[in-house]
Amino acid sequence: MNAAPPEHPAQPRIEPRPMPAAMHEALRARFGERFSTAATVREQHGRGESVYDAVPPEAVVFCTSTDEVAFVVRQAAAHAVPVIPFGVGSSLEGHLLAVQGGVSIDLSRMDRVVALNAEDLTVTVQAGVTREQLNREIRSTGLFFPIDPGANATLGGMAATRASGTNAVRYGTMKDNVLALTVVGADGEPMRTGTRAKKSAAGYDLTRLFVGSEGTLGVITEVTLRLYPLPEAVSAAICTFPSIDAAVRTTIQIIQMGVPIARCELLDANAIRGVNRHSKLTLPEAPLLLMEFHGSEAGVREQAEAVQQIAQEHGGTEFQWATTPEERTRLWTARHQSYFAALQLRPGCRCQATDTCVPISRLAESINESIAEAEASGIPYWIVGHVGDGNFHLSYLFDADDAREAAEVERLNVQMVRRALRLEGTCTGEHGIGLHKMGYLVDEAGPAALAAMQRIKRALDPQNIMNPGKVLAV
Amino acid sequence: MNAAPPEHPAQPRIEPRPMPAAMHEALRARFGERFSTAATVREQHGRGESVYDAVPPEAVVFCTSTDEVAFVVRQAAAHAVPVIPFGVGSSLEGHLLAVQGGVSIDLSRMDRVVALNAEDLTVTVQAGVTREQLNREIRSTGLFFPIDPGANATLGGMAATRASGTNAVRYGTMKDNVLALTVVGADGEPMRTGTRAKKSAAGYDLTRLFVGSEGTLGVITEVTLRLYPLPEAVSAAICTFPSIDAAVRTTIQIIQMGVPIARCELLDANAIRGVNRHSKLTLPEAPLLLMEFHGSEAGVREQAEAVQQIAQEHGGTEFQWATTPEERTRLWTARHQSYFAALQLRPGCRCQATDTCVPISRLAESINESIAEAEASGIPYWIVGHVGDGNFHLSYLFDADDAREAAEVERLNVQMVRRALRLEGTCTGEHGIGLHKMGYLVDEAGPAALAAMQRIKRALDPQNIMNPGKVLAV
Repeated sequence: MNAAPPEHPAQPRIEPRPMPAAMHEALRARFGERFSTAATVREQHGRGESVYDAVPPEAVVFCTSTDEVAFVVRQAAAHAVPVIPFGVGSSLEGHLLAVQGGVSIDLSRMDRVVALNAEDLTVTVQAGVTREQLNREIRSTGLFFPIDPGANATLGGMAATRASGTNAVRYGTMKDNVLALTVVGADGEPMRTGTRAKKSAAGYDLTRLFVGSEGTLGVITEVTLRLYPLPEAVSAAICTFPSIDAAVRTTIQIIQMGVPIARCELLDANAIRGVNRHSKLTLPEAPLLLMEFHGSEAGVREQAEAVQQIAQEHGGTEFQWATTPEERTRLWTARHQSYFAALQLRPGCRCQATDTCVPISRLAESINESIAEAEASGIPYWIVGHVGDGNFHLSYLFDADDAREAAEVERLNVQMVRRALRLEGTCTGEHGIGLHKMGYLVDEAGPAALAAMQRIKRALDPQNIMNPGKVLAV
Repeated sequence: MNAAPPEHPAQPRIEPRPMPAAMHEALRARFGERFSTAATVREQHGRGESVYDAVPPEAVVFCTSTDEVAFVVRQAAAHAVPVIPFGVGSSLEGHLLAVQGGVSIDLSRMDRVVALNAEDLTVTVQAGVTREQLNREIRSTGLFFPIDPGANATLGGMAATRASGTNAVRYGTMKDNVLALTVVGADGEPMRTGTRAKKSAAGYDLTRLFVGSEGTLGVITEVTLRLYPLPEAVSAAICTFPSIDAAVRTTIQIIQMGVPIARCELLDANAIRGVNRHSKLTLPEAPLLLMEFHGSEAGVREQAEAVQQIAQEHGGTEFQWATTPEERTRLWTARHQSYFAALQLRPGCRCQATDTCVPISRLAESINESIAEAEASGIPYWIVGHVGDGNFHLSYLFDADDAREAAEVERLNVQMVRRALRLEGTCTGEHGIGLHKMGYLVDEAGPAALAAMQRIKRALDPQNIMNPGKVLAV
């Protein structure tokens, strides 16, 4: 680790670039009541689910079209004022803090499905459509969009942060499921980054460059996505293990054998305790794998049998099936609420979720050492993980007013990241860099790759107005 | 179409940037006999399988390590001399022509598997390893690398051109299967663009930016790839159809139903004629789908039954199975040799392969109209297509000495591209832009996206020394 670990959760330094009166007036004239400088609105747009206190933008604009976004960005470019795109505010690493002031572009009212092409398994949506809304709107077609980061995030936000989540082990991440984007560049010009063709070799892959760029290269206003036929059969199962290690080794073997499992989630005993209490369940309070299988009736049965055998070899017990949609929904709702459930284990605390991802063969080592450190620290924690991808979240519940605890949590996070890099993994599987992980990115990328990213940033955003102060320093 | 169609196959304008004596000496001193200015060596490195005559580089360097590539690029940067990476020379759109002179970096001797991590389903290879070599070297692990563009290309070249081919319908393209790259940037500094983790949200996706950049942003020297467990069962089948349209409609329905078919290739009667003659086969000379299924024994059976039923509904007959490896190899070898087989249909001719890709629902329209135009032109052609992806190659056999024929072929190509763009598709599914499709990229990307690509090019290669004059003009 070259960079000094960030002091944490020290608030970032704030260097506002004020919006001139002319810009205020231009935005107010165009947007009327959809331009707001009210304290509560600004406050709500200046934070996400990160450990930081809010840093409000100077104003918020609620846009309803690409043209409107382009108008705002042209104003921002003319006055060298930052713009920060906002979806539902579910980001975890401080992406939304207005550390250099500027205007928040709220895209949540861009909530229209623009073009559904069911016969091509594609859909184009405005950036503010959420994943749950999309799946509701396309239900009658027999298709679905699988990427599920837990939160009911907007698809623009999911693209901007390269989201993944529980289904990624089978369906990939946003990187794999965005066909094309409409992006408003830093000069206020909208561009289209691809077509609806399933593949293309036409020039630089701008789509993949904007996916995961966290608003620092442009504002995503429309997203064209791949859809999938709803599987003929879906089956979910839970299985309890004598140890985390046994659950992880089961996962490793499932992946190595090529079982096309659709979801493979680990919850530790602490997470289960929270879930049981919050969702009124009675799951055994022991390490648990929550799995889902998609396919034909026969295919699902075949996958399940293979997995059941592997699990038994590792001491897995209590293999319970949930085949009805209601049972499955109950389990996945509990899983998705585990974050809020766990927060209640230590009322008034803040949560710092780590997010390393390593090659699958290194997963047991990565988790075991992290648990040993967490136990030694005495700070309450719980674990959920998309373990089929080698990605897990060890989340600390800490008292933000206790400087010692806060520093200890960051020290533990640094150790986890160092370990992940040593094991040929990454500092973030899916939460992104935001504000919090900029130092980690420096270590992970190395100077030459970081310099390439900085050159790209300067080339596409010469005034540094697109979500400045995030991802990388320029 | 805004851009005037390129005159074709008019040779490109050549504007050499000569290599100073100091650079000649530095390269000769370091590389000895691996530095060559021999006419035959230069000639061989100045062309691929494109319609153009060779435009030889000023010299060729055979590198064996990333450090050596870095040395060459630092020399090139110091003297503002172009570098053109070279694998096996199988590119189709003029990628290798030294239109601004410079040095060809031959990577074929970088043919070492650097790290095989079978338990993680990953492998890192030097850029000169070919796909067939890789699959030979990893055979004992029970894993394979599926991407198969036909030619036994290098994995560096396949990454650089975002190759795909016959297995892409199931396994995706190079975009989906490269985890990380080592790239020597235009300043001669090597960088690593990712880790071995299966997913990451750490910063800009440099991996995907270099994949498909055709040597214009840097020289790829190492490639980390995803591998897959060899399927438990593999089965191939051929089925003959009363018309191209029936074969295409069968394909569309297979994809829409979500059958996880591994390969779905169309050959028209002309292609079959060539294949029969060249490979001593007796296939019915009618439109044919060549399909492959991967999975468990039961899964493959299930897929095959579903496909057989769809095919029958569209008048498919002569469903023939090839379940032994020998039979399958015979069929796929014939398919892969269809290019050379077809060339023999009109001895002494040149071949211009088109490469449009459209959303699957538009495929029938796209192929049917193209065939009507081809028939009207009277120029011999044949069709093979990765139709499961909406991608097909209508290839013209023309007399390069006949200016009228050559111009007619390009006119037909332009019409196909226009049609593909109108149908929301792309001018190139997999062959890339190279020299030939630069005008088409202008039309497809539009001014704002093209400007973004140009900014990226200028930022990462300010002296325009990385394969200059390809992909886009700066």
